[in-house]
Amino acid sequence: MEAKVLYTIMKYGLIKEKDNIVVGVSGGPDSMALLYLLIEAKKQIDFNLIIAHVNHGVRGNEALEDELFVQRKAKELGISFYSKTTDMIAYGKEKGISSEEAGRELRYGFFREILDKYGGGKIAVAHNMNDQAETLLMRIMRGTGIDGLGGMEFITHDIIRPILNISRNKIEKYIEERNIETVLDKTNLLPIYTRNKIRLELIPYIEDNFNPSIIESLWRLSQISSIDSKFLEEYSDKKYNLILKSEMENYIILDKELFRRQDISIQQRIIRKSTEKLRGKLQGLTEQHISSVVDLFNFGDTGKTINLPDGIIAKTDYNNLIIEKGKIDVPKEYSYKLDIGNNYFPSVGYNFNIKVLPREEIQDIKSNKNLRFFDYDEVKGNLILRNRRNGDRFIPYGMNGSKKLKDYFIDEKISRDLRDKIPVIADSEHILWVVGYRTSNLYMVKNNTKRVLVIQYFDSNNREE
Amino acid sequence: MEAKVLYTIMKYGLIKEKDNIVVGVSGGPDSMALLYLLIEAKKQIDFNLIIAHVNHGVRGNEALEDELFVQRKAKELGISFYSKTTDMIAYGKEKGISSEEAGRELRYGFFREILDKYGGGKIAVAHNMNDQAETLLMRIMRGTGIDGLGGMEFITHDIIRPILNISRNKIEKYIEERNIETVLDKTNLLPIYTRNKIRLELIPYIEDNFNPSIIESLWRLSQISSIDSKFLEEYSDKKYNLILKSEMENYIILDKELFRRQDISIQQRIIRKSTEKLRGKLQGLTEQHISSVVDLFNFGDTGKTINLPDGIIAKTDYNNLIIEKGKIDVPKEYSYKLDIGNNYFPSVGYNFNIKVLPREEIQDIKSNKNLRFFDYDEVKGNLILRNRRNGDRFIPYGMNGSKKLKDYFIDEKISRDLRDKIPVIADSEHILWVVGYRTSNLYMVKNNTKRVLVIQYFDSNNREE
Repeated sequence: MEAKVLYTIMKYGLIKEKDNIVVGVSGGPDSMALLYLLIEAKKQIDFNLIIAHVNHGVRGNEALEDELFVQRKAKELGISFYSKTTDMIAYGKEKGISSEEAGRELRYGFFREILDKYGGGKIAVAHNMNDQAETLLMRIMRGTGIDGLGGMEFITHDIIRPILNISRNKIEKYIEERNIETVLDKTNLLPIYTRNKIRLELIPYIEDNFNPSIIESLWRLSQISSIDSKFLEEYSDKKYNLILKSEMENYIILDKELFRRQDISIQQRIIRKSTEKLRGKLQGLTEQHISSVVDLFNFGDTGKTINLPDGIIAKTDYNNLIIEKGKIDVPKEYSYKLDIGNNYFPSVGYNFNIKVLPREEIQDIKSNKNLRFFDYDEVKGNLILRNRRNGDRFIPYGMNGSKKLKDYFIDEKISRDLRDKIPVIADSEHILWVVGYRTSNLYMVKNNTKRVLVIQYFDSNNREE
Repeated sequence: MEAKVLYTIMKYGLIKEKDNIVVGVSGGPDSMALLYLLIEAKKQIDFNLIIAHVNHGVRGNEALEDELFVQRKAKELGISFYSKTTDMIAYGKEKGISSEEAGRELRYGFFREILDKYGGGKIAVAHNMNDQAETLLMRIMRGTGIDGLGGMEFITHDIIRPILNISRNKIEKYIEERNIETVLDKTNLLPIYTRNKIRLELIPYIEDNFNPSIIESLWRLSQISSIDSKFLEEYSDKKYNLILKSEMENYIILDKELFRRQDISIQQRIIRKSTEKLRGKLQGLTEQHISSVVDLFNFGDTGKTINLPDGIIAKTDYNNLIIEKGKIDVPKEYSYKLDIGNNYFPSVGYNFNIKVLPREEIQDIKSNKNLRFFDYDEVKGNLILRNRRNGDRFIPYGMNGSKKLKDYFIDEKISRDLRDKIPVIADSEHILWVVGYRTSNLYMVKNNTKRVLVIQYFDSNNREE
């Protein structure tokens, strides 16, 4: 085990001599095993090891005991120790993100604070082969391409994962054989978070019914995908540089003829790359966005425009393909019929998925900012996506009286400029949802609701995990 | 719907004027919808439509009623009708394949017989978007790379799938709106086959707990993977032709220097391609085989040899990489220790996965020719993979007395030549398994068995579905 981890560290260059390595230690088996394995590696590579522990403030006394346990271990081992207590639930609410994501941001933020004191370094985390399998299943279920199937890497920027290729079984065996003391993180045992549900329900079900070696099969899938995806990325980078005519802060111009000679697999990657360069991120760019641009760039008429998230525009002229940061070029007034299934409107750039499900089927799904449920039997006529009209009123969820939409916007401190851009979903009589904001009380899912309308909005800040 | 199917037919060239198209009709909703959609398409494209029905002889009278139903429909519609009764269970036993696979072989065999009478043509089958999702999940669970994630294609050789991009929901709606009469295939409702289990248990679980649009997400994954995988295949073909020095019936010689300049993603594909050319098939070539050859070809010493399935050998000399059909070059006597996890022995070319599981966890998994269960508590000492030794004895499963292994081979009519090659798995005292043949009665899993040893052999005829 020690040899395997040392091999990983050397092969992927995870730790070099004199590096500062902060290892996040919860006290659970995975992070305790990582800690002891890093101590072993230190015998071969002379680096500086620092232990950090974050108390997420969700498990009261028990969490305090864990903190004291890790602190005591650090002292015994003679390793510097830092800890911090945070409130991930409050932080999540404040930032409008899930508490899992909040926890992650707080943890890494703290680790980097520590590293700053030391003049920089890397963060070692205890992700293992089982975590990788869970990540893959999560991504497969939520929707991904082969780039997502690569899963987590041994090293991403300043984060290193020295035990990524070791299964939880082997970690537990190591802990047992070495008599390493650990604590039990009970939050890992509740199937409330998506990841725990995958770990505690889905994977055991697959192991029992389909493949007892599912963890290893998914590991191989991640390795194969990662190799293919890296090759495709590098190849597309080369082609991008060949096709590129001009790359400025506000626009990218590509050679139409050279672009059209590429395979669609490479074209898609070049479009993704260009958009990412202008926006600084990929989130929210869906496969439908990309294939609309692919169609436009291959067959589209000069003058046609496609709107992408964050006001990015794709268009063509005689010789060129252009992707640029525009003023958001949404029609002054727009109104589109929404159908069951996927709805993508290139001229405004919005992307919705619409379903109607029997009430029983949505019990376990939680709504969020971009995923909302409505009583389908209350819907009159067609569903319409449009921007606001003079005189629009709506009844915010939880309230009884209706309100001018304009007043709602004012109360929510939404700038005049934005008010015209926020889409609403309405039927022939009322507004159901001010997208990204409140839903209407009229369409609330009640106990006697039979069919539930599920609307998912893919916004440009959608995070995959 | 008619327009969408016609678009698919045109776009992928599924049906041309004057084609003979045999459509397999079970009488269920999917195939009846396909039948009516093809009748619509016939109004635009002048082709010859033929209905075929196979009675698999597993549901007695009910199956006969289905056959008569399809026959009556064919008559009403004025379309030629052929039917055949088969015994897929007997056929499966005879051929040593699952009854699902047997059913598939018998169906396609019959369809091709019909087409032969017409001078050739294509077979239309009713695979839909849900079937595609099931295929992807099955492959993901069993282990696959991105090439497998492409799933089924609209056209593969002589098989066309005109409704592959239509979901089961939409098919049912179409059936309802058009008032098309159908029968219910009850074998689809039993979660006994892997595929039915995925359909009836796994997908609904994922829809309820993780993603109500899982079918569409998997569809997108298949489309993306198929685009990427086709590009990688074409690119590797080009590189293969560049690197190839000589391609004969019994060997392939590649240029070492040019090979080493390729990305590992492409190297893997070139090795797969070369091996496939010599063997005529890919089945049984695992990722471990391929990565051993990649290592040999990139870093290996001249003179080292790797054994691949079916007696294919990979080796290098000063300037060349060689893949050749050898005499099976297995050491005369060999003996290797087997460990928990994956075991691959390049010098003999065998590949085993070994697990130990608690008894409760294997209740639903069925053993087959290459997947066997043993009582782990009966195992003494190390597990060993070896060929036969003089004086070997073993107690075939279901028998009480022990038998000379030699006599067992004679009874099984195994040629002398093969007898030395068949590997056995033994512990320090007895033979557990004559691999590919019988297991030992001594290690039978009993009611009081606590830990089960699971051994999976990846043989060169392993079929993925």
